[in-house]
Amino acid sequence: MNKQSVFIAFLTSVVMVAGYHAVSAQQQDRMVRLSEIEIEPAYLDEYKAILVEESAASVKLEPGVIAIFPMYQKETPTSVRILEIYASKTAYQQHLKTSHFQKYKTTTLKMVKSLKLVDMESIDAATMPVIFKKMNENER
Amino acid sequence: MNKQSVFIAFLTSVVMVAGYHAVSAQQQDRMVRLSEIEIEPAYLDEYKAILVEESAASVKLEPGVIAIFPMYQKETPTSVRILEIYASKTAYQQHLKTSHFQKYKTTTLKMVKSLKLVDMESIDAATMPVIFKKMNENER
Repeated sequence: MNKQSVFIAFLTSVVMVAGYHAVSAQQQDRMVRLSEIEIEPAYLDEYKAILVEESAASVKLEPGVIAIFPMYQKETPTSVRILEIYASKTAYQQHLKTSHFQKYKTTTLKMVKSLKLVDMESIDAATMPVIFKKMNENER
Repeated sequence: MNKQSVFIAFLTSVVMVAGYHAVSAQQQDRMVRLSEIEIEPAYLDEYKAILVEESAASVKLEPGVIAIFPMYQKETPTSVRILEIYASKTAYQQHLKTSHFQKYKTTTLKMVKSLKLVDMESIDAATMPVIFKKMNENER
């Protein structure tokens, strides 16, 4: 091995370590939340339509909104759970000010019996790209 | 427009409709679950390490495992929540028989205070590809 290859190998490892820390810092900024929302039965279909419109808009229009994944419990369809992932707390704060979120919030206020915003930490950030790549592949 | 273009346009729309139904059927087969797991505090770090190893292996090795996304509640770190998405109930049943899952199950049995497997339905299947594409982009 000559001096040049050693230097290149060293530079490569520096870049890799820097890249890892950059990704880690990015992951540390990230905000994960699981919202638990109970909906008035009479409003359920209307609520879901408004929610879907808002979450689709958020994900498409806001780079800082990484995921909004709404679900309901099979046994209790009025129990809605939303997995939300934001690039940072700042991105989340900006999301709250958007017109699509404001529209969602004001139009669904009367439909929501209770709301619990549960802040989460993801346990395995490293595997996320693999996990969600498969989501895409399965959609085709 | 000549007869050939009309025919091609017709064929294209048939393929698109068939594709949509194929995707819809695929989405209908899909199984979504939110697991709620309470962990004995003394075992928390050990449990998380075993869980991460198993979920990473499942996602990488099993095409039918679309996502296993483990999280814990910030305020109560012993409260673990796992979002699980399987291509079908069959894929889920096969997952239960794998050596990595069996290893996870047997080694963590003593660590789990309670386990609740909550079957879910996703509300907005159409936006999923967009949502999870951003997960990938944000990881780079």
